[in-house]
Amino acid sequence: MFHPRSIAVVGATEGPANINTIMFLDSLLEFGYQGQIYPVNPRLSQVSGLKAYPNIRDIPGPVDYVISLIPAEATPQLIADCVAKGVKTAQFFTAGFVETGEKNRARLQDELVRIARAGGVRLLGPNCVGIYCPASRMSYCADFPKESGRVGFVAQSGGYTYLAVRMGAGRGVYYSKVISYGNASDVNEADLLEYLAADPETDIITAYIEGTTDGRRLLKVLTDAAARKPVIVIKKGRTEAGRKGTMSHTGALAGDDKVWDSALRQAGVIRVEDVDEMVDLLVAFLFMPVPRGRRTVVIGAGGGVSVRAAEECESAGLMLPTVPDDLRSEINRYFSLAGSMLRNPVDILAEPLGDGAWAPVLKALDGWQEADVILWQMSPDMEPIRTAEFCRIVLDIRRTMVRSFNSVQKPKALAIHTLETHSGLEEMVALREACRHEKIAFYPSVYRAALAISRYISYHHRGRALPAANLQGARW
Amino acid sequence: MFHPRSIAVVGATEGPANINTIMFLDSLLEFGYQGQIYPVNPRLSQVSGLKAYPNIRDIPGPVDYVISLIPAEATPQLIADCVAKGVKTAQFFTAGFVETGEKNRARLQDELVRIARAGGVRLLGPNCVGIYCPASRMSYCADFPKESGRVGFVAQSGGYTYLAVRMGAGRGVYYSKVISYGNASDVNEADLLEYLAADPETDIITAYIEGTTDGRRLLKVLTDAAARKPVIVIKKGRTEAGRKGTMSHTGALAGDDKVWDSALRQAGVIRVEDVDEMVDLLVAFLFMPVPRGRRTVVIGAGGGVSVRAAEECESAGLMLPTVPDDLRSEINRYFSLAGSMLRNPVDILAEPLGDGAWAPVLKALDGWQEADVILWQMSPDMEPIRTAEFCRIVLDIRRTMVRSFNSVQKPKALAIHTLETHSGLEEMVALREACRHEKIAFYPSVYRAALAISRYISYHHRGRALPAANLQGARW
Repeated sequence: MFHPRSIAVVGATEGPANINTIMFLDSLLEFGYQGQIYPVNPRLSQVSGLKAYPNIRDIPGPVDYVISLIPAEATPQLIADCVAKGVKTAQFFTAGFVETGEKNRARLQDELVRIARAGGVRLLGPNCVGIYCPASRMSYCADFPKESGRVGFVAQSGGYTYLAVRMGAGRGVYYSKVISYGNASDVNEADLLEYLAADPETDIITAYIEGTTDGRRLLKVLTDAAARKPVIVIKKGRTEAGRKGTMSHTGALAGDDKVWDSALRQAGVIRVEDVDEMVDLLVAFLFMPVPRGRRTVVIGAGGGVSVRAAEECESAGLMLPTVPDDLRSEINRYFSLAGSMLRNPVDILAEPLGDGAWAPVLKALDGWQEADVILWQMSPDMEPIRTAEFCRIVLDIRRTMVRSFNSVQKPKALAIHTLETHSGLEEMVALREACRHEKIAFYPSVYRAALAISRYISYHHRGRALPAANLQGARW
Repeated sequence: MFHPRSIAVVGATEGPANINTIMFLDSLLEFGYQGQIYPVNPRLSQVSGLKAYPNIRDIPGPVDYVISLIPAEATPQLIADCVAKGVKTAQFFTAGFVETGEKNRARLQDELVRIARAGGVRLLGPNCVGIYCPASRMSYCADFPKESGRVGFVAQSGGYTYLAVRMGAGRGVYYSKVISYGNASDVNEADLLEYLAADPETDIITAYIEGTTDGRRLLKVLTDAAARKPVIVIKKGRTEAGRKGTMSHTGALAGDDKVWDSALRQAGVIRVEDVDEMVDLLVAFLFMPVPRGRRTVVIGAGGGVSVRAAEECESAGLMLPTVPDDLRSEINRYFSLAGSMLRNPVDILAEPLGDGAWAPVLKALDGWQEADVILWQMSPDMEPIRTAEFCRIVLDIRRTMVRSFNSVQKPKALAIHTLETHSGLEEMVALREACRHEKIAFYPSVYRAALAISRYISYHHRGRALPAANLQGARW
């Protein structure tokens, strides 16, 4: 499935309405897929510069993998052709089956499965975008990274794979294999999770699941996988409208959310709400050593924003020990008491001062034995002065500060807020680049950083006694 | 206070470390303040091109407003000079008073207040950035909008005023008056809220409060204000670390959060968690007619993201009625059943099709009597194809779609997601501009849109029977 010698794209076409062809044929070309690519279209002799064939049975060499872009009505014939040709995997982007809620459409899907199983062809989908595997240069999207990573992602929704891959790329998170499986008519979430659990190229398993038809097996597979690797799951269908939505999307029965919730917990799976939380957690797994505990010191700018940071850290399950007097006096040598909070959060507005004050204060905090984590928050467009010249100077200072931050020995992370002003967005992009280069974990807000770190700690310290977090007043 | 004839900036200086002068003197110049501006510095004859005076008593004309940038130790003499000069308001950016937690610093603040009160000078702060009033061209920030709006904002944190004003500007929200009051030693939150309640230039009152020393009066002022205008309050100190933070920031006793929560509710105030929720709610108040109820139809792209949208709307207190068969058939004329959810959310991927399908479907949904609100979600960088050329074409189509969306009669909003890819950020900026131009309410996510709309409905229908929202499974 992940290393086919050849791929046929059935229904590839030319012309202005060729979106599907751009997705599934042109992406393979642009991505540098090394096997044979065969467009199949009875009305064309050539597609995207490649020789086209009227039917897959007319293709001279073997065909390992077929991508179907043709209408649902024509798919039974196609799957019969796949059987005749000895195809190993048929992936159906084609939609319009059980998810429509129409009985005859559900029957059509059943027929596909029957023919495929009888003929020894594995079926992926229907109603899915299929496989992204950078190692074999398989991709349904030209702009996905060619770089392989250590995260596997199994997704019932194709859309979520775009979210996970693109959001990941911006945060330094790359994937070994991404598989969207849509209606799960044959190959299902359990098969794919089982594969990733055994896959030596995958260190962390992630999944987006709407529903299942074999909960017992899924639970067993998840339990086995979670015993070997961290497993992070987005399970949809929390609310009534969400459950109707999964049915309408992939024909999936979402099931009782409370049952799912406790089953996932029992399996040792980390359940997250959505893709942003998933990527946040991956950033912790990939770029942070495991903290000894939840005691966090928050540094950076400042005032009301520090108050907010304190609340958000506590709400997410972290604790903020108070900076002791001797350490406070030491910091006070570099930062005036006036206009600064130094008790934790510690207002360190190093930007106007540069590294001279920043480095020794970082060192002092790094040596503080009562703190397990250092979280630095930065809000470029919150600053009082945002002239173009000022922004340029401060950005250079901040880049230097990011490098200094990397000398901190404790587990650490950076939260880079933006108010989404034009200059704030530009600066955020530049600072993220600096963090990726330094391999420092960074987050778009203190709350998201705190939640990811807190869960990361919970995962690694599970079963052990940790001081309970004070969640009083938590709204999250 | 808001319309002084002249302003003296005490401690204004020249040179590379003149950040405070850039904030408080240069901003007035760049903002076009029309009164007299007097730099005061005994060591300089000129600052920023203006004649400087050694002491405010040496200034020839009257001085209505003084901004103090000098160290805390020197402020008792300054306030005595203010009394001698007949100054009306003295605003202290100067910090280092009660908020440090040091007893002698608290005494220093008490002394300032004693001298000011005895001499008839009103004191703003200390530890505050003061006043932004576009009508009188007063500003402590050169990049704030010169455009006046109808929202007043009273903030114990100066930093939050930057957040509120800049975030507001990006969303089409402008302010009549913004006042940061820091340690509230003399003029306090109640005084300022009372003023805004009576201010004909202010239609909506917003506030960021850390604590108060006169809860009884504040509650009365808030109740009176809320009877006249919508009042939205961020109250900090929900968690233990938050309460320590407010003390360390402005010396404010945050108090028991449960007491605050019920007091604010009794007063008829809308409590929000933070500035993003505040601006979101302002967007609803400013750009949306009041919906008749909570029944919402979600349109746009699609699949897994639609499932998420359904869950988020329900979690936020909105309801998603199921599209009836006749309406579904009508939509089905334009959008294929295959690959589309049409039951609500309704997957309308009009981008490849253009206005020909979009306009009639919008019209059909607008005429549906079982829906009160139309919420359109758009995720530019979630699309399968993101080549530069494709992005350009689709952006043009989307701009046209935004104009068509404005013909919808029902209350409506647009959620523009981005995964923070470079092209996604650019497209988001362009689409926001289109929305601001059309005066359409827009939000950075479905959840934030839904929460703001839900609260907006609750505010306007309070005391009346509305169908209860199904909050089962809600995590927010």
